Amino acid sequence: MEIGLSVEAENRIGVLHKITGIIVELGGNIVYTQQFIKDDDIGFIYMEIENIDDLEELKNKLSKLSCVKSFEIHNTLKKVFGKRVIIIGGGVQVAEVARGAISEADRHNIRGERISVDTLPVVGEDNLAEAVRAVANLPRVGILVLAGSLMGGKITEAIKELKEKTNIPVISLKMFGSVPKVADLVVGDPLQAGVLAVMAIAETAKFDINRVKGREL
Amino acid sequence: MEIGLSVEAENRIGVLHKITGIIVELGGNIVYTQQFIKDDDIGFIYMEIENIDDLEELKNKLSKLSCVKSFEIHNTLKKVFGKRVIIIGGGVQVAEVARGAISEADRHNIRGERISVDTLPVVGEDNLAEAVRAVANLPRVGILVLAGSLMGGKITEAIKELKEKTNIPVISLKMFGSVPKVADLVVGDPLQAGVLAVMAIAETAKFDINRVKGREL
Repeated sequence: MEIGLSVEAENRIGVLHKITGIIVELGGNIVYTQQFIKDDDIGFIYMEIENIDDLEELKNKLSKLSCVKSFEIHNTLKKVFGKRVIIIGGGVQVAEVARGAISEADRHNIRGERISVDTLPVVGEDNLAEAVRAVANLPRVGILVLAGSLMGGKITEAIKELKEKTNIPVISLKMFGSVPKVADLVVGDPLQAGVLAVMAIAETAKFDINRVKGREL
Repeated sequence: MEIGLSVEAENRIGVLHKITGIIVELGGNIVYTQQFIKDDDIGFIYMEIENIDDLEELKNKLSKLSCVKSFEIHNTLKKVFGKRVIIIGGGVQVAEVARGAISEADRHNIRGERISVDTLPVVGEDNLAEAVRAVANLPRVGILVLAGSLMGGKITEAIKELKEKTNIPVISLKMFGSVPKVADLVVGDPLQAGVLAVMAIAETAKFDINRVKGREL
């Protein structure tokens, strides 16, 4: 069983260390953790934990920590927001790819899936390369779409790095530069690119990106 | 100084506990952490850490942990992906709000900001309420937009809860149901809603949502 655990705690050095300690004690495996600061003095911790059989004992131990202000056990973010399509590039193209992807995600989510579509409009080779590289640090990424008219150089290198580090497939719009050469699939129409991105990660779709690897549409 | 730290480590119970231990030792304050499982046996840890003066010592200590396969120090996700506009609701309206938001974010990001636009098309009162509630667990959220034609009941309760827990402003499309009654701002045109959502969180925009609180556009 996988649970989501949200904890509001004092923003003090060592608080996360104490909470992870409790989970380790109870034999839990932390499959996803996230901690951020809400206000100046409150830390907000969210965790997805496998293998904690004794939820009452977890609640007990957390209640006894003086640094913990409140906590809740609930569904995981994975269950709520699902797999993510990440679209990065120039404003107008990102918007069009997103339009295709959101409409297609809607159709799959209606059938019980969870696919979210997340975008970053950003300009400049260095910024784009950094964003592509940072995709490796985002949770729940299913696929990456590069949307623009000209991308190469450091962006291409960043895609190669991402592909070494992760299994995330990459779709590129048909564009100038070397990015289409390292993408798994190149698509001319931005709506179609968005739809295919969702189809590639949807369990309710029949499309297998590996069967069209290196193709251009 | 705030740094981003990525670590690839064995997926074993207690690994996160060891790494946070090192950071605590060096006087670091973990402002954001994230851990997820890449493959069956590799855990991927990402952290944003304040107040570590001695980066060499951090590198030294991490190198000596046998459970650590590799690590990198780099820019934070906050710097790369920035503040997030979250859009939740029905497919066609989510897509239109996103179109407005992405175009507007593009205009601000060109001037050096970082705003990303993230969406979840989802249907059903329970699913929508759960998604709204889960927004409290997402990092870097700047604003939430509810896009649909009819939302109320549990969704309205979830918005109230979110507003108690966080400072996240909520924009609602003009729609049937009680959601518009609890939103900070109600907007008829989805493109305009997207543009205003970005303007409300952009530092390069003059729009202050608090000055129009409770208004309908």
